Amino acid sequence: MRMNDYIKLVNEKLNEYIEIKYPENIFKSMKYTVTLPGKRLRPVMCLETCIMFGGEIEDALPTACAIEMLHAQTLIHDDLPCMDNDDFRRGKPSNHRVFGEAVAVLAGDALLTYAPQTITKYSKNLSPSTLVRVLNEYFKFAGAEGVIAGQVVDIESEGATDKSREILDYLHIHKTSDLFQLAMRTGAIIAGADDDKITAVTEFAKTFGLAFQIADDILDEISTFEQMGKTLGKDKAEGKLTYVSLYGIEEAKCKLSCLFKNCHDIMEKQDFRSEIFKDIIESIKKRVGI
Amino acid sequence: MRMNDYIKLVNEKLNEYIEIKYPENIFKSMKYTVTLPGKRLRPVMCLETCIMFGGEIEDALPTACAIEMLHAQTLIHDDLPCMDNDDFRRGKPSNHRVFGEAVAVLAGDALLTYAPQTITKYSKNLSPSTLVRVLNEYFKFAGAEGVIAGQVVDIESEGATDKSREILDYLHIHKTSDLFQLAMRTGAIIAGADDDKITAVTEFAKTFGLAFQIADDILDEISTFEQMGKTLGKDKAEGKLTYVSLYGIEEAKCKLSCLFKNCHDIMEKQDFRSEIFKDIIESIKKRVGI
Repeated sequence: MRMNDYIKLVNEKLNEYIEIKYPENIFKSMKYTVTLPGKRLRPVMCLETCIMFGGEIEDALPTACAIEMLHAQTLIHDDLPCMDNDDFRRGKPSNHRVFGEAVAVLAGDALLTYAPQTITKYSKNLSPSTLVRVLNEYFKFAGAEGVIAGQVVDIESEGATDKSREILDYLHIHKTSDLFQLAMRTGAIIAGADDDKITAVTEFAKTFGLAFQIADDILDEISTFEQMGKTLGKDKAEGKLTYVSLYGIEEAKCKLSCLFKNCHDIMEKQDFRSEIFKDIIESIKKRVGI
Repeated sequence: MRMNDYIKLVNEKLNEYIEIKYPENIFKSMKYTVTLPGKRLRPVMCLETCIMFGGEIEDALPTACAIEMLHAQTLIHDDLPCMDNDDFRRGKPSNHRVFGEAVAVLAGDALLTYAPQTITKYSKNLSPSTLVRVLNEYFKFAGAEGVIAGQVVDIESEGATDKSREILDYLHIHKTSDLFQLAMRTGAIIAGADDDKITAVTEFAKTFGLAFQIADDILDEISTFEQMGKTLGKDKAEGKLTYVSLYGIEEAKCKLSCLFKNCHDIMEKQDFRSEIFKDIIESIKKRVGI
């Protein structure tokens, strides 16, 4: 399948999985951010991993969509006034600007259980033990040792110390790589891949996630609002720790090239047959200009 | 087992299940609200239901504690400035007053996945299919069709209309009964109870939860801060829909007696052998003065 076919399928399913029921406002708020146009990288990478290891796309679709719901959840809460206080997301007003803060908090909360519920509800072909395995991955990467650990350290990272490089890697691995790890690991588990393959995709996802975050930091510095659909330059204004603030643009670009090379090396060594992963890397390189 | 033994056991396990790891602030914030002194009604009712139907207490402990974590999660987010804006909870400063709003939001988020993760991590004797069943109950009652539905309608209920009685019942069933239903249903499922028994405890929990909320509304009106450990009279000041505001104290008390009588009827008809449930009802009646 090609990138656009994947995206279309994911969008159809996201729309199908979130029905608007009473009390409508909460479902509308959840659906608003989940269905904002996006590249759907995490679900696509979950589906592609599943197919790469011989699995069926139908079996991974609920999990792929659940990961996009979780991603949307992190965006809703990160944008809140008490967090990053962002008024725009993907070119549209952020969730709390449309539905109010109280509903935005609750919509995020609701997505945190709606996502794994989607997995158990729609994954008809997965055995209970595979379901539990997939859910454990979700709990780990969505929780206090996963993406939330990254966000907490991010909040606390303002005012850098000599520990900055260490903190920055920790923060990026959790805040960004964790959802890519979740996507690829669950794709592999659903396909029935063995432990060596799961270890290999974990390494790929971790490296890719770091690269993705560095690219995001660079784009935050060199792009316009129209290109990114969100408020830019805020990290800099608030003295936040980013790859660009710590290393400067040129060294950040260098680090990015190096990480993408590592991704390619893993793919070659492990014989990952995926054009999609190569396409994704190329498109990011093009945007950043390396 | 007696009430105090149950409470002691639950407190020990809650303390054990939440370890303080890096990044410490998030785990400290989670643990702060989860371990505030409380009656532990929901976990106790889960354990008692499991035992009443011949199950093992060890098998239900992780789920019972997960429900207390979920309950703490709702308290943390409900107390936020953008929600009920409460500075005190169980006699102590509320979570965001101690850890700041951003960490309080994230601690609530973390608990929403930490709770079901506790179930899968520590329920060593449950089969994968029982685990999935228990998790599905958790997702349903914790989510947008469960306790969150109640909270959303509560927020939107300010400024009553002629639909008030209907809305009030909906709100109470979800905001309060749902966690009691979750507790008793999972206790029954873990014990291997049949569908008729699960239906019976569901009915009991729904009725008990409504009564519990009416008692809370009455106590909010007649108690002191020292007795309740939280700010009182706020619902009234903000024109919120409560049983007392809609029916007056006397009719609310009358409704409460009636619901507790229904609870006793269910217990008798279904031959529930539990002194604990009777004790819980008696202690609430005593506090409210009926």
